[in-house]
Amino acid sequence: MKNPWDGIIPEEEQQVYEAAGFGRRAGLGRKPALLIIDVQYRSVGTTPQPIQEAIKEYPTACGDVGWAAVGQIATLLKDFRAKGWPVIYPYVSRKESFDKGRISDRVPTVMGIEGRGYDFIEDVAPVEGDILLPKKHPSSFFGTPLASYLVEAGVDTRVVVPHEAVYDRSQVSHAVNLFDMAAKYADVMSVNELQVELAKIA
Amino acid sequence: MKNPWDGIIPEEEQQVYEAAGFGRRAGLGRKPALLIIDVQYRSVGTTPQPIQEAIKEYPTACGDVGWAAVGQIATLLKDFRAKGWPVIYPYVSRKESFDKGRISDRVPTVMGIEGRGYDFIEDVAPVEGDILLPKKHPSSFFGTPLASYLVEAGVDTRVVVPHEAVYDRSQVSHAVNLFDMAAKYADVMSVNELQVELAKIA
Amino acid sequence: MKNPWDGIIPEEEQQVYEAAGFGRRAGLGRKPALLIIDVQYRSVGTTPQPIQEAIKEYPTACGDVGWAAVGQIATLLKDFRAKGWPVIYPYVSRKESFDKGRISDRVPTVMGIEGRGYDFIEDVAPVEGDILLPKKHPSSFFGTPLASYLVEAGVDTRVVVPHEAVYDRSQVSHAVNLFDMAAKYADVMSVNELQVELAKIA
Amino acid sequence: MKNPWDGIIPEEEQQVYEAAGFGRRAGLGRKPALLIIDVQYRSVGTTPQPIQEAIKEYPTACGDVGWAAVGQIATLLKDFRAKGWPVIYPYVSRKESFDKGRISDRVPTVMGIEGRGYDFIEDVAPVEGDILLPKKHPSSFFGTPLASYLVEAGVDTRVVVPHEAVYDRSQVSHAVNLFDMAAKYADVMSVNELQVELAKIA
Repeated sequence: MKNPWDGIIPEEEQQVYEAAGFGRRAGLGRKPALLIIDVQYRSVGTTPQPIQEAIKEYPTACGDVGWAAVGQIATLLKDFRAKGWPVIYPYVSRKESFDKGRISDRVPTVMGIEGRGYDFIEDVAPVEGDILLPKKHPSSFFGTPLASYLVEAGVDTRVVVPHEAVYDRSQVSHAVNLFDMAAKYADVMSVNELQVELAKIA
Repeated sequence: MKNPWDGIIPEEEQQVYEAAGFGRRAGLGRKPALLIIDVQYRSVGTTPQPIQEAIKEYPTACGDVGWAAVGQIATLLKDFRAKGWPVIYPYVSRKESFDKGRISDRVPTVMGIEGRGYDFIEDVAPVEGDILLPKKHPSSFFGTPLASYLVEAGVDTRVVVPHEAVYDRSQVSHAVNLFDMAAKYADVMSVNELQVELAKIA
Repeated sequence: MKNPWDGIIPEEEQQVYEAAGFGRRAGLGRKPALLIIDVQYRSVGTTPQPIQEAIKEYPTACGDVGWAAVGQIATLLKDFRAKGWPVIYPYVSRKESFDKGRISDRVPTVMGIEGRGYDFIEDVAPVEGDILLPKKHPSSFFGTPLASYLVEAGVDTRVVVPHEAVYDRSQVSHAVNLFDMAAKYADVMSVNELQVELAKIA
Repeated sequence: MKNPWDGIIPEEEQQVYEAAGFGRRAGLGRKPALLIIDVQYRSVGTTPQPIQEAIKEYPTACGDVGWAAVGQIATLLKDFRAKGWPVIYPYVSRKESFDKGRISDRVPTVMGIEGRGYDFIEDVAPVEGDILLPKKHPSSFFGTPLASYLVEAGVDTRVVVPHEAVYDRSQVSHAVNLFDMAAKYADVMSVNELQVELAKIA
């Protein structure tokens, strides 16, 4: 299998997208930035374990698949730090009493995340100089100044999603979202392939 | 089967979401608005036919599944017009020469849509008093004043997605996106169920 | 004199606005919220004094005029707390090393604000349940989720600016901005007049 | 007098800003774009005349001062076209019946602008390849995809306001807004000075 969505998106559906002209790659630019999301303990749990166990610690935790992705993020993070390229952490703000009634209507359990849940995972935590952006919504762009920081840093690279470095609690949903993004919004590639592309930038 | 994603999202994955507390419904408010999207000929083609044929007319056309959804939209539209509730059409702006280099990098064929492609489908076209909002991005909110119009109209209803009235070119992607929305962002229900809920509003 | 801008905006200019139809009031709604800005010590200094002295403590401090406004804010805040209406504090985030090169290009001195500069002024500080929104830009809306919180709270009141409860480092600029807002964007009224209007809301 | 606000913002107020460190210039980048606003007949009238007469044609018209600025815009536009740099026109959308109740609450006369009011002034009208962005709000950024187009075009130049090429219906308000912008948000310079700076870009 070549793509993470093979076997999930039927072959004939993939052929329609291909015939209609979707999914061309846009390529990297000259000034990349690394956007790191979902690296708080609330998203993976404090220790690797199957998701069925992980949700007992934090309802939002994805367990093993999250920890596997964190390992890949660490690899890319090392590359970006070596080059001195910008590293940006949009992160989930601790829920406050005034946040009740929003996302908590649909997922009431998110209000109860405590302790280390909002801390960054140690292996990939931010360091001095990294850009930290609290967010109240799932999107890293909505209601945050992320766009301003990208412009300020002169970032010119289109969206690339290294597929082993992202994760979701449903493997089917994960694969299908990668397919959707590859069709219309992002270059989806392996971490290894991305490292090769990044190495070409002076 | 009860949900559009049954048989696509594995049962054990659905159980994890349930156990973690995802997917509670938020309910309607007292002031709904109907947001109608994807009702230009470019999205379905000028006549119902299988998608493999439809994309030969417009690469973005979904064919039969789109036309089926348009029929359901017409049903809801009639209800909203009878009540005098706001009807909003965020629609895709005709691509101009200055749009080249954006989405067209990934889907170059979208630059070539002509003729009636940007016209509204006759059965569900806007009438005087409806709110028309041109958009340049896939999202109806990004780069448009949609949020302002919703606030101005006093709309208080959370997002409801009537699943037969929306569509996508991949059936798997369609079902999975409904699942994701139901888990975190929207009340996903049948058109019939929505009509029952709307009838309860004075 | 009736308006804060009388004597600054010439009479004949005011007549043109009047003749062209600018400056009608929009009125309050039924659900107000209090948006409190510029109540960190960086904006007024830690003690009331003339601005020429205040800027020696913090370059952004306005001194006496700021402290006078804070007293008026305290009055309105008391009214809102008594009614249980939402109180929102968009506040300036502490400048981090990664903020260098933005606003700091034009006002390099803002990078050096330390100590209590980012603390809230004690008399009008937030309490449990108030909505706190860090901002990186001057606007309270840009790059923040403020709009979402207003919608979530069902706030339906148009913008009202109580003129003694806002301030600026230039009195001319202050008066002229009130005039511009009254002409096009807000109901500008005295704190007393606003209290009378608020008392009419059940 | 050196600045457009001299004689309006008192000398002692200007000294406070200077002492506090406001108003440093940020300088141009390497990739400028020309943002042209307020060049529809509604903003100046169909012919140059005093504002007292101009508002009888369109309540929003500024008359002579607007026409003087349009002449300066034409000069800069010629320079940008010669260089092939991007030219962007955020423009006011024709008011529709569904726009009633927004800005029209404060300025009810804006709903009645007809005829050529929304047409571009002939001397500075857009040509094929220019970026046209309809707007419903006064800001060119709010509810429009302007930011996306600037990013897409790789524009890296901070905001410069050539003061003879902008205008307002109040001369005092105009001068004071230039002062505010120069203090915090933009490099305010003469058209001539800007031309010199632009000529330095390859």
